[in-house]
Amino acid sequence: MIIIGEKINSTLKSVRPAIEKYDAAAIQSLAKRQSEAGASYIDLNAGMFYQDEPDRLEWLVKTVQEVVSTPLAIDSPNPKALLRGLQANKNGKPIINSITDEKERFDAVLPLILEYNTSVIALCMDDTGMPETEADRMKIAESLISKLTKSGVKLDDIYIDPLIRPIGTGSHYGRVAIETMRMVKKEYPDVHITCGLSNISFGIPLRKIMNQAFLVAATAAGMDGAILDPLDKKLMTFLYAAEALIGRDDYCMNYLTQFREGNLVE
Amino acid sequence: MIIIGEKINSTLKSVRPAIEKYDAAAIQSLAKRQSEAGASYIDLNAGMFYQDEPDRLEWLVKTVQEVVSTPLAIDSPNPKALLRGLQANKNGKPIINSITDEKERFDAVLPLILEYNTSVIALCMDDTGMPETEADRMKIAESLISKLTKSGVKLDDIYIDPLIRPIGTGSHYGRVAIETMRMVKKEYPDVHITCGLSNISFGIPLRKIMNQAFLVAATAAGMDGAILDPLDKKLMTFLYAAEALIGRDDYCMNYLTQFREGNLVE
Repeated sequence: MIIIGEKINSTLKSVRPAIEKYDAAAIQSLAKRQSEAGASYIDLNAGMFYQDEPDRLEWLVKTVQEVVSTPLAIDSPNPKALLRGLQANKNGKPIINSITDEKERFDAVLPLILEYNTSVIALCMDDTGMPETEADRMKIAESLISKLTKSGVKLDDIYIDPLIRPIGTGSHYGRVAIETMRMVKKEYPDVHITCGLSNISFGIPLRKIMNQAFLVAATAAGMDGAILDPLDKKLMTFLYAAEALIGRDDYCMNYLTQFREGNLVE
Repeated sequence: MIIIGEKINSTLKSVRPAIEKYDAAAIQSLAKRQSEAGASYIDLNAGMFYQDEPDRLEWLVKTVQEVVSTPLAIDSPNPKALLRGLQANKNGKPIINSITDEKERFDAVLPLILEYNTSVIALCMDDTGMPETEADRMKIAESLISKLTKSGVKLDDIYIDPLIRPIGTGSHYGRVAIETMRMVKKEYPDVHITCGLSNISFGIPLRKIMNQAFLVAATAAGMDGAILDPLDKKLMTFLYAAEALIGRDDYCMNYLTQFREGNLVE
């Protein structure tokens, strides 16, 4: 599983003050701990500071790469902020989080992918809004994959995110997300599938349980990337269990190693 | 989800003495508690007492139906024991656990299904043994469904169990079980899918986590029956979460009700 560590995000109440006060030590600690916990990418988001998001995103990039060499997920809907983050990046090939099939956003982000040779998370959303059914999401995924590959982006650099809507607002949204993942992975085995897990449980009780269940169901449907908190040991336990369960972990070696190292919790 | 409560089973060390000593109060307590916890069937198994299994199974049936009206799962590979259990049954339509595609066992159990008008759990196993791949399991499932329906058993009375082998003995066994479930449910939407969950985790650490993960993945693949311990609140929490997640629980009403009644735990 390609783990995108989500902790350095200005939308998180516990993290926002550290970005606000340019608290490098706090940010660097979060970066190091996520990296040690197995993050393949460290996500960096300063989107709540819309006055000076580009400055702050650049600061996050510079601050984090002082202490870890883990590749970065440069996270913004704002192409200007993405550009500043990419210009500052020295941690190997980054991933842009994210592009959509909205014309204006697509046209603004595509040149950044090509110029900075990045991977990219592509959200199943276009100018008509957020699609309702799995067929509609699949159509947008196909459109995104087609346009990106025609522009020279490799399949292996594309991470399709079906967009997770809370099951509390529509009982079908979990099934729709899971089935979209299955369809995309079947049609494009070389494309990666990812998503932000926690939106699924917004507004319902025992959110952690629902997030753990969704992680398992999505992994079984072909999700091979996940934007999550790698410091959440329980969630990571379900991640390793899900990978062993669906046969992605030969002889359960990784599960057993993680267990022996004390990283799994019941 | 059709829950088959697995607690009254002579293979369980904690339960065996109660069957051995004909401890009606202990057995009746297990029956009542499982029924209250939502069991659709109470499984009764006296298989460890091979000297007098039919007598003991009959005793279990009579003992349990003194206190609950929940239908029973008469659990034995031994047709003589099944017959005695069925003769004693007064709790409505029972389910036989189980038939296989082994010729001798099939021919002995089929008449009991027909004479006593029961549902039946059909294990994907034949005279060549336990099949390795999902295609081989599907072939046996098709053979069982075809023979049962030709004999007059309704699709809705058949519960296919793909047979769960421990992922500790083969990393592919989880995937094989899950994919078999998906194939059977796709081909025969009216047939039920069930399994005994806990075999998946035999021999690996943190078995409960793996069982919870497997319950979620199997439910997402179409499993609509499960042989499990309904007194395990954590497992039941994942069951309700999985059903809400895949859209089987309109407006998450059942999940929310169970939460309000204090039946869910994090």
